[in-house]
Amino acid sequence: MTSINHQVRLAARPTGLPKASDWEVTSEPAPTAGPGRFVVAISHLSVDPAMRGWMNAAASYVPPVELGAVMRAGAIGQVMASEHPGFAVSDYVYGAFGVQEYASSEGSGVIKLDTSLAEPTTYLGALGMPGLTAYFALLDVGRIKEGDTVVVSGAGGAVGSVAGQIAKLKGCRVIGIAGGQEKCRTLLEDFGFDAAIDYKSENLRTALREHAPRGVNVYFDNVGGDTLDAVLARLALGARVIICGAVSQYNAEQVRGPANYLMLLVARASMTGMLVFDYQDRFPQAMAELAQWLRDGRLVAREHIVDGSIGDFPDVLLMLFAGQNTGKLILAIDHS
Amino acid sequence: MTSINHQVRLAARPTGLPKASDWEVTSEPAPTAGPGRFVVAISHLSVDPAMRGWMNAAASYVPPVELGAVMRAGAIGQVMASEHPGFAVSDYVYGAFGVQEYASSEGSGVIKLDTSLAEPTTYLGALGMPGLTAYFALLDVGRIKEGDTVVVSGAGGAVGSVAGQIAKLKGCRVIGIAGGQEKCRTLLEDFGFDAAIDYKSENLRTALREHAPRGVNVYFDNVGGDTLDAVLARLALGARVIICGAVSQYNAEQVRGPANYLMLLVARASMTGMLVFDYQDRFPQAMAELAQWLRDGRLVAREHIVDGSIGDFPDVLLMLFAGQNTGKLILAIDHS
Repeated sequence: MTSINHQVRLAARPTGLPKASDWEVTSEPAPTAGPGRFVVAISHLSVDPAMRGWMNAAASYVPPVELGAVMRAGAIGQVMASEHPGFAVSDYVYGAFGVQEYASSEGSGVIKLDTSLAEPTTYLGALGMPGLTAYFALLDVGRIKEGDTVVVSGAGGAVGSVAGQIAKLKGCRVIGIAGGQEKCRTLLEDFGFDAAIDYKSENLRTALREHAPRGVNVYFDNVGGDTLDAVLARLALGARVIICGAVSQYNAEQVRGPANYLMLLVARASMTGMLVFDYQDRFPQAMAELAQWLRDGRLVAREHIVDGSIGDFPDVLLMLFAGQNTGKLILAIDHS
Repeated sequence: MTSINHQVRLAARPTGLPKASDWEVTSEPAPTAGPGRFVVAISHLSVDPAMRGWMNAAASYVPPVELGAVMRAGAIGQVMASEHPGFAVSDYVYGAFGVQEYASSEGSGVIKLDTSLAEPTTYLGALGMPGLTAYFALLDVGRIKEGDTVVVSGAGGAVGSVAGQIAKLKGCRVIGIAGGQEKCRTLLEDFGFDAAIDYKSENLRTALREHAPRGVNVYFDNVGGDTLDAVLARLALGARVIICGAVSQYNAEQVRGPANYLMLLVARASMTGMLVFDYQDRFPQAMAELAQWLRDGRLVAREHIVDGSIGDFPDVLLMLFAGQNTGKLILAIDHS
């Protein structure tokens, strides 16, 4: 095997939005299999808002990506060489393989994909971390129940689009917040939301008053900032706010806290942070249920796949922060 | 009855700290009893941080005090005339009687005090709303358990001082945050806290690192602002933050939200607002337990009683925001 492995490495810690000089594209010989090891040819990279946090020096729920290291990323691909008993050539696999064309692995944390259940890329979206995040956030942390008014921000994104659909499946009234009329149309027409608010052209507070006249029982927050404050002001008694992310704040030099947090007191409400990794032992059951919903057509998986090469990763990441994706943003890697 | 009833009324809605011109002292003939009504001679007024919120125009968990109305206040006193079958002359009672010398009542929301259990003023502190707030906040919302590291802010105050002691009773390690070395000494020596941090002279983050090396399991927040942010940065996995108040923010023109709220995500922690009124049906059981602890000497009730007249109320209220009280701040009314 004499292929070249192109990689995107973190060259500098960004201030604000990552820029070209924060990255370095390098190449080295592709890895080879060895005893207990296999090699994956990466076909699709997951592009996630959380990546921005991993680029900072401060440890969060995971250690930061070291300067000079290959950028961390979830990815799928096919095994192309293996001396590992559990992984055979041409198996489809998911793992934290990083932003590169080839990865070698001893199998830890790597999941074999059941391609009879769904397309491989679905395992980066509705059947992957985003879908599982939405599932556990709403059902476990948010404890949604029939008749609840549920608000989802970042509703056009990988997590939000699944979250809204799960809430609908459970009999909730679902209001999505997204940027742009096109996305809002998708929420209503493709994902079946009851209402959509375009935060770019509408007054959020007025729209929330209109669409949630009796208040918000569950808020699934992916964005933070003004949106979080606007929803806090509309909480119903006993409301649950799920903090899943804060994409509006990831590139800010100073995170702005929610000025309306005392509405938690007025509404006797809670705000809870969640990370999908805590539910790992329940992934199989959740994936089975999500897959069933997909098969039944009750859940629509949407992927936004950009065709390109490893070197396109920095630009595709910026698409996220510009809100240019609807559904799960994926970079498909051309190996030719 | 030809007594004069002196009253403090809200004259203007304050910006920042209430000033003299925000109040008006008025007098009118004292009320008389009538069918189904009794008259209370108010002996002690409860002076609470929440009062500042009631003075604002915006509705919160209770409606604002109307301009021109007698300022809302919890108070105790003795029945001096009664045509109500449930209340006899010389009964000690607690009620939302307002900042005045005499109040008439039909008995709704009025509690008769068992003075064999404790001094009447204890019903404004450890056996009253502050004690009950601490009780339900820690046991119900915070779900404290043996071995937890519990941090209490406003720890020298009416609620905080009881909260810290309840956490100690339940086998927690308790760290109090208060302003001034004298208060911190009281926390350690009189209330039995394990550690005390003087936020006025110590670096809060350094001190928390020292006293809570394995992180904070439960944080009982009465102050908001910088203190809340400092504790959020030290949360242990699965921590519970109880939002009971935000005395540092009540006089601010714009509330500052906790910039570190994303630590809820990192720590998979929750932040929950609580109001004691939601636990009304369990008050008798909680009061019985608190009274037992008082009798056993396991709980120390501390009242900071200022002797004065109704007209002193505006100044005594300011003592709260200057942090001049240790324990429950009470204005004793001289009727002579």
